[in-house]
Amino acid sequence: MGFRHKDIIALKDLTKEEIELLLDTADSLDEINRRDIKKVPTLRGKTVINLFYEASTRTRTSFEIAAKRLSADTVNITASTSSVTKGETLSDTAANILAMKPDIIVMRHSVSGAHEYLSKRVNCSVINAGDGAHEHPSQGLLDMLTMRQRFGTLAGLKVAIVGDITHSRVARSNIYGLTTMGSQVFLAGPPTMMPIGIERLGNVTVCKDIREAVDQADVVMMLRIQLERQGKTLVPSMREYSRYFGLNPELLTLAKKDAMVMHPGPINRGVELSSAVADCSQSYILKQVENGVAIRMAMLYHVCGGEPAEG
Amino acid sequence: MGFRHKDIIALKDLTKEEIELLLDTADSLDEINRRDIKKVPTLRGKTVINLFYEASTRTRTSFEIAAKRLSADTVNITASTSSVTKGETLSDTAANILAMKPDIIVMRHSVSGAHEYLSKRVNCSVINAGDGAHEHPSQGLLDMLTMRQRFGTLAGLKVAIVGDITHSRVARSNIYGLTTMGSQVFLAGPPTMMPIGIERLGNVTVCKDIREAVDQADVVMMLRIQLERQGKTLVPSMREYSRYFGLNPELLTLAKKDAMVMHPGPINRGVELSSAVADCSQSYILKQVENGVAIRMAMLYHVCGGEPAEG
Amino acid sequence: MGFRHKDIIALKDLTKEEIELLLDTADSLDEINRRDIKKVPTLRGKTVINLFYEASTRTRTSFEIAAKRLSADTVNITASTSSVTKGETLSDTAANILAMKPDIIVMRHSVSGAHEYLSKRVNCSVINAGDGAHEHPSQGLLDMLTMRQRFGTLAGLKVAIVGDITHSRVARSNIYGLTTMGSQVFLAGPPTMMPIGIERLGNVTVCKDIREAVDQADVVMMLRIQLERQGKTLVPSMREYSRYFGLNPELLTLAKKDAMVMHPGPINRGVELSSAVADCSQSYILKQVENGVAIRMAMLYHVCGGEPAEG
Repeated sequence: MGFRHKDIIALKDLTKEEIELLLDTADSLDEINRRDIKKVPTLRGKTVINLFYEASTRTRTSFEIAAKRLSADTVNITASTSSVTKGETLSDTAANILAMKPDIIVMRHSVSGAHEYLSKRVNCSVINAGDGAHEHPSQGLLDMLTMRQRFGTLAGLKVAIVGDITHSRVARSNIYGLTTMGSQVFLAGPPTMMPIGIERLGNVTVCKDIREAVDQADVVMMLRIQLERQGKTLVPSMREYSRYFGLNPELLTLAKKDAMVMHPGPINRGVELSSAVADCSQSYILKQVENGVAIRMAMLYHVCGGEPAEG
Repeated sequence: MGFRHKDIIALKDLTKEEIELLLDTADSLDEINRRDIKKVPTLRGKTVINLFYEASTRTRTSFEIAAKRLSADTVNITASTSSVTKGETLSDTAANILAMKPDIIVMRHSVSGAHEYLSKRVNCSVINAGDGAHEHPSQGLLDMLTMRQRFGTLAGLKVAIVGDITHSRVARSNIYGLTTMGSQVFLAGPPTMMPIGIERLGNVTVCKDIREAVDQADVVMMLRIQLERQGKTLVPSMREYSRYFGLNPELLTLAKKDAMVMHPGPINRGVELSSAVADCSQSYILKQVENGVAIRMAMLYHVCGGEPAEG
Repeated sequence: MGFRHKDIIALKDLTKEEIELLLDTADSLDEINRRDIKKVPTLRGKTVINLFYEASTRTRTSFEIAAKRLSADTVNITASTSSVTKGETLSDTAANILAMKPDIIVMRHSVSGAHEYLSKRVNCSVINAGDGAHEHPSQGLLDMLTMRQRFGTLAGLKVAIVGDITHSRVARSNIYGLTTMGSQVFLAGPPTMMPIGIERLGNVTVCKDIREAVDQADVVMMLRIQLERQGKTLVPSMREYSRYFGLNPELLTLAKKDAMVMHPGPINRGVELSSAVADCSQSYILKQVENGVAIRMAMLYHVCGGEPAEG
């Protein structure tokens, strides 16, 4: 089966088979990252534009490395140096970039919906590298890849996601992807950070207490608390937050033996999770980053038509 | 005939035959941009340094893509992160960059004359990517390429250029290039934005009224009004400017049937031109951007010696 | 003999034979920089990450060009746009970058010791591109390369280093490297800028007067005075500094006939040295920059295993 989409905007739009295809391809391409010569000619002569309206070293670097290992040409555009500061609309910026005939635009934008808007206006591929509080599909996919590598399947897994669910595009992409794949998602977080009606998505349970979410979980995914955003209004203090929704070794014992600890990074040590947990043998945080390159290679590969890689 | 210059600083310096050679080459290289694999080995092993003292996403990206599609290595240097902030002179910066043995320096600098100064001090090629209010040759060439593709020739065309002529390097490069190619240029703009004696260049007519310039024009080129520069002193208000020197559908009917509408971008919708004009079928604004990659490929190719491209 | 280190953090750690190997390789690779096609496939498929916590056009550009001429893929990360601003620790940043499986991390960091800290935590190679006031090994090596090309050997040379020795990583790397190679180092600078006990390093003489250091020197290396750092407190004024520790043509006559004048750049004309000296035939300042690309090619090559270059 081929991948039929020209864009990857949201995991909400993908079927179980499509997600599985992306994960399978990532597992296969990841071998390249372990070679001495980490480069295949798959996307030679393709132009990938990284259009970042929000700063992001981690995601931009991961996409850039993924593209280069597939031999694509990459061009970085960041909002601070772009025409955006001259008051140009997204539509005009998009049209101008498209006129240069890129094959793929990887975009991060603070407005939910910016990617759909863009994808309808361009005939090249659009990959969402994070949009507002909506979705972050490459993060969701790399998280699922990491879980699947560990458990062999996503079906039937109990996954706890803890933190600011309302403002987390990571949570949203994981919720859509995991429920599609047959996992059971348990959410925990301060009431001010829990979207109303989220349980209607199916296979999603909202827990009042983090212990209920973590209990017998296969995976405990801690979200980054945005100190700069909610610090003052949504939670009384970081200390308070950490006390009720931080993960420490004692709390982790409630989960299944050898449960996975995950976090999208960058981590706030001592806030969402203690250093003891971040660095323990159950932590897959760095494996997530590693899988990020592989999953982005798979995404770039499939939106470009997905012919067999050589090299 | 070969291209005999090591640099491209100003269209004022180029003959009719040289401009035609650049346009012919751009037309020929543009085919690469439509391929599935958009890359030829023409400039493999050449180092292109994009040295930008002023921010410019559009021009820098266009040059970067052009260089990469010809397989050159590109390195971006922007003033904000450069030694410039340490008080180094342009001459010392140039000497230092040259010591790294680049083949081409593509430079944008706010001072007119900076490129000639640089070109005399280096033995690599220098391409002007915009200098103060002097010239912007790649823009002038891509504009002429777009007109020539539409009309088959530039000779005898009536081209109206409207806006802040005094501060526009785009206008200046077009005036030099178009008059060399045998077009007739009609200028319109507020008296405070019209350089005294500009009509002495030959084949240039200064009009008091935009309607006189647009009347029976083959091409209407609207310039970007720099809101941040002239807003307060040179024109009473944006509204006033738009009323007297903005292009709307009604005004456009004065031009020839199917006259081309052009703009160097980024556009201020509702100021220089209405959205109805910017997006109408007579607008070639995005075709200009598209041609920008091809013309820059041709410029990079010819200053490097211009041997036949393979691939 | 092969190069046995995975990292190059400090010239203090290298033996005479290792330094000679790096200089020999640089001399050999430099030929590539003079070719028409300046590219060899030596590091194809290797990923080089330039991680700069301090801005540096010159060093970053030099490493980037060096890497590209060896066909490596390069990714630039600067602190201003990185997760660093989100409060991530160096250790976490390093672990994350490492998870993307780079082959070499080229890092500039303001904290002395940051590179050793990093190198212990990663299994890829780490090259120090400047750390606080500690070392700047690529600069020390390119300086020695430039001297050796001129004199055939470093043994027995009298090298004067003048300026703010205390805060200069360039001085420190040169002192370690040159004394290892058998040169005699003479230091001069304001007492407030001279580290106590520096003469204990062996073959290092502290001079009270710049004339004593320059007298019969083979090489006079002037350091950049950091106007932004010491201007007010460590020296009474720039004028005063220039008068007592600046190099002018008259002072240079004290050195050996045809002594080399060197400076790590960017130069403050009229402060550390007069323009007459900076631009005279004895000045090797631009040759230093030129050799910078060659020495960085050699460093990248050897930390990657140093197999024979083809091309």
